[in-house]
Amino acid sequence: MPPTFDEIVEIDPEQTPAWLDLTALADTPFDLTISGALSPERVEEMKASAAGFSLLYATERVTKDVVDALSLLAGQTRAVDQFEMMMHGEVMNRVKGHESERRQVLHTASRDVFGAPSSEALRKSQAQLDRLKRFLAEADEEGRFTDLVQVGIGGSDLGPRALYLALQGYAKKGRRVHFVSNVDPDDAAQVLRGLDLSRTLVNVVSKSGTTLETLTNERLVAAQFTKAGLDPKEHFLAVTAEGSPMDNPARYRRSFHMYDYIGGRFSATSMVGGVALAFGLGCENFLGLLRGAREMDLNALEREPRKNLALLAALLGIWNRNFLGYPTVAILPYSQMLVRFVAHLQQLDMESNGKRINRRGEAVPYATGPIVWGEPGTNGQHAFYQLIHQSQTVIPCEFIGFRRSQMGEDMDVEGTTSQQKLLANLLAQAVALATGKSDENPNRVFPGNRPSSILIADKLTPSTLGALLAYYEHKVAFQGFLWNINSFDQEGVQLGKVLANKFLAHFKGDRKALGPAERALLKAAGL
Amino acid sequence: MPPTFDEIVEIDPEQTPAWLDLTALADTPFDLTISGALSPERVEEMKASAAGFSLLYATERVTKDVVDALSLLAGQTRAVDQFEMMMHGEVMNRVKGHESERRQVLHTASRDVFGAPSSEALRKSQAQLDRLKRFLAEADEEGRFTDLVQVGIGGSDLGPRALYLALQGYAKKGRRVHFVSNVDPDDAAQVLRGLDLSRTLVNVVSKSGTTLETLTNERLVAAQFTKAGLDPKEHFLAVTAEGSPMDNPARYRRSFHMYDYIGGRFSATSMVGGVALAFGLGCENFLGLLRGAREMDLNALEREPRKNLALLAALLGIWNRNFLGYPTVAILPYSQMLVRFVAHLQQLDMESNGKRINRRGEAVPYATGPIVWGEPGTNGQHAFYQLIHQSQTVIPCEFIGFRRSQMGEDMDVEGTTSQQKLLANLLAQAVALATGKSDENPNRVFPGNRPSSILIADKLTPSTLGALLAYYEHKVAFQGFLWNINSFDQEGVQLGKVLANKFLAHFKGDRKALGPAERALLKAAGL
Repeated sequence: MPPTFDEIVEIDPEQTPAWLDLTALADTPFDLTISGALSPERVEEMKASAAGFSLLYATERVTKDVVDALSLLAGQTRAVDQFEMMMHGEVMNRVKGHESERRQVLHTASRDVFGAPSSEALRKSQAQLDRLKRFLAEADEEGRFTDLVQVGIGGSDLGPRALYLALQGYAKKGRRVHFVSNVDPDDAAQVLRGLDLSRTLVNVVSKSGTTLETLTNERLVAAQFTKAGLDPKEHFLAVTAEGSPMDNPARYRRSFHMYDYIGGRFSATSMVGGVALAFGLGCENFLGLLRGAREMDLNALEREPRKNLALLAALLGIWNRNFLGYPTVAILPYSQMLVRFVAHLQQLDMESNGKRINRRGEAVPYATGPIVWGEPGTNGQHAFYQLIHQSQTVIPCEFIGFRRSQMGEDMDVEGTTSQQKLLANLLAQAVALATGKSDENPNRVFPGNRPSSILIADKLTPSTLGALLAYYEHKVAFQGFLWNINSFDQEGVQLGKVLANKFLAHFKGDRKALGPAERALLKAAGL
Repeated sequence: MPPTFDEIVEIDPEQTPAWLDLTALADTPFDLTISGALSPERVEEMKASAAGFSLLYATERVTKDVVDALSLLAGQTRAVDQFEMMMHGEVMNRVKGHESERRQVLHTASRDVFGAPSSEALRKSQAQLDRLKRFLAEADEEGRFTDLVQVGIGGSDLGPRALYLALQGYAKKGRRVHFVSNVDPDDAAQVLRGLDLSRTLVNVVSKSGTTLETLTNERLVAAQFTKAGLDPKEHFLAVTAEGSPMDNPARYRRSFHMYDYIGGRFSATSMVGGVALAFGLGCENFLGLLRGAREMDLNALEREPRKNLALLAALLGIWNRNFLGYPTVAILPYSQMLVRFVAHLQQLDMESNGKRINRRGEAVPYATGPIVWGEPGTNGQHAFYQLIHQSQTVIPCEFIGFRRSQMGEDMDVEGTTSQQKLLANLLAQAVALATGKSDENPNRVFPGNRPSSILIADKLTPSTLGALLAYYEHKVAFQGFLWNINSFDQEGVQLGKVLANKFLAHFKGDRKALGPAERALLKAAGL
């Protein structure tokens, strides 16, 4: 029988038998540096495949016993049950006994659009998608609009931007998408330069309809339209929650809805990403993205952790974070198209799991979400890999690769293609980090035993990108379930907002808005 | 009398009296959360200014005693002496008693071009700069070239790219610069799309003239020119070391030199950045950048640490890293123009100080370079700040801000400008991180005591950007001097190259190139 929310919040992971086993196993983590450690049998065994991807984890510091214990931990914390509860509409976004958001968590509904809708959330997903298709068909027919500027920040920016950049090989001819996010006025000024506003749509995205940066940039951009003799209402679209202050169709050419059960950082496959992606890449490619995400969603229901890619990745991450004690994780895509994908994952992971209380409101005695960072390889090799290879700091690495390039414009130089060079480097790094190297010159010693995994698919397509996105969404959700934290709120952003408003009140002339410390800071800053 | 290299490599920082004092002081770091902690006196006192910037550090967890002890540490490790040795041409890039690069470290020479040259290095800087000016005057006159594609990776990419993007408000009309770095063939394919090659210059940058990625991309790009009926020699420029395999003027329209005494990650103000920046922004703006860098270079010679901005930042970083034990540092520019600046700093810092042996070849018993990461604010506030505010992990933050926007296209929305909103957020974050907030709801508690500093200038101009670049170059160099490590080599990148070549040999058909582990990985990856 599936557990209730009240039951699962009582599961303290560090009290489970599996956690104790893992603590003991962590005294002697697998030594990757001994000769023969990376045996062909190990490499073959430590592999899982789903939704077009294979995850290779022979270069992690785990043994079969460790993976067994991690699998038990998943069972004892009811990880897959919790995932099912989430997908089925349980109110997972809450902290028991305390005021909290108390919302369902249904981003998976935004891509469950390929069958008959079995719930209100699915009906809404399909309705919004149909609305989008009709709008774009009209826009195609009208043929007027070549550019779209998405105005949004955080979840309304990073995911859609990362996905759009990742699929440039699928861009619709004559269409371009741009993004304005920062309240820094130079952001909008820079993006609007050189655009023909008469042929430009603006998509304003804010779930709450109250995001300071987004509303300010909406006004800033609208003023440019007015200045150019254009009516913003003819050009502006909105994506917002039903009933938000922005939910006012009279102000927009077209409005789309998002729902309070989809958090910003999980919203890329909803209309938050949909409008820009379908405009820039075509509806079919946006649907391809949804299909891939849906495939990975289904894999996350798999109960055997060794076959559930996102759960397996979550468990390996917990081994590195809680048992080997590493505070960060580097995500290193060997694809230049994924140039901003890590910035999205940084938000996804750190905003979700950068928490210190559990779902009963008690301080947790174990480490939670790591610092997530990274840049594409091979670029990173010429930048920060020095520290990863040779400093005392150990950084678990997650490599992402593709067998073929996206655009297929390649050539042979000195006997190999660029794609082969790219892949040779990816594989070489995983081996080098694991095995290390001794040397008489102490400056040429590589300690090795730096854990990594490789996630690989055939090609970065809309579908594999959707699967990759969902893989990380679920990895993050599984880790939150295992840590018994609420991955779906973000109370930590509130204090800064409150204090920023005090500074703004001061700028508006309220000389009592600030205390002496704030006034001293302003003065020291020359403001 | 100035010390010799042999003398300074004997200084173990953890053996100095100041280190012991700091260790004791770290038992009770300054508590920023108590009422009145951020007194106006403290804010005023903890401020240093030079080269257009002020560094405010009242929100670090330091007392006057801590700053005194850090200043003593700088003296006892002869930090400024070492900086002088570096600027004066001492062979600072070496490890005593072991084979090493044994080079001077003279990136400061690339901007010491405003007086009479007093050394061979300065003469060379001026000669290359004159050569560049002549070339660009010819190009201006000819009027043919609108675009320049820089082909380079690591130091030949990140610095120039970050600086170019940061100065878009100063871009020369009708000129654009693009960057191809990754060996991923999608990188070049994506950049070349839509370019009119007949009006495009290509600047190939590799100090060694042997960088795999760069030579491959040079060939890939050249093939596109040939395909378009254009002669690459008419379009291609080179920046390389004298005598490198690329130092062949017959192959290039024009060649420029860089020198072995300027490391890649320190080369942005040499011809490595100069060609692209002067083409895209105009010579005067490139000279402005050099002037600002030069001004900060001179400030780094200041012997009083409280007046030496880069040294002070280095010392505060060492307090956070070695005495409070924080493994990462977030650099958070409140300027969208600095969107790739942190990627450059990541390389600059992590490749320089991600080391584990000292300059005598012995393992160091203390922590060295931190993991450096970050994204512009306010964007980051909607992404990863949740973890910074509320997780257990403490992340020292370096805020960067400017009183005015670069482009000046701003407007009043609800009583304040966008620039005021941006600055209000920056200041609010520093206060929020420091002071925290208690609450009855445990999910709304902010622990505070998260250290930060604010670096602020009037406006992001070529000159302040140059100063900012030099500030971080010197912060990194000072930390290396203090830690007694060689910040100027990068032996940690070698092993990956060697192993990648084995995979490449395999792809070329050499079936004995790989061992069983590598072959198993290839197979598991479906390759």
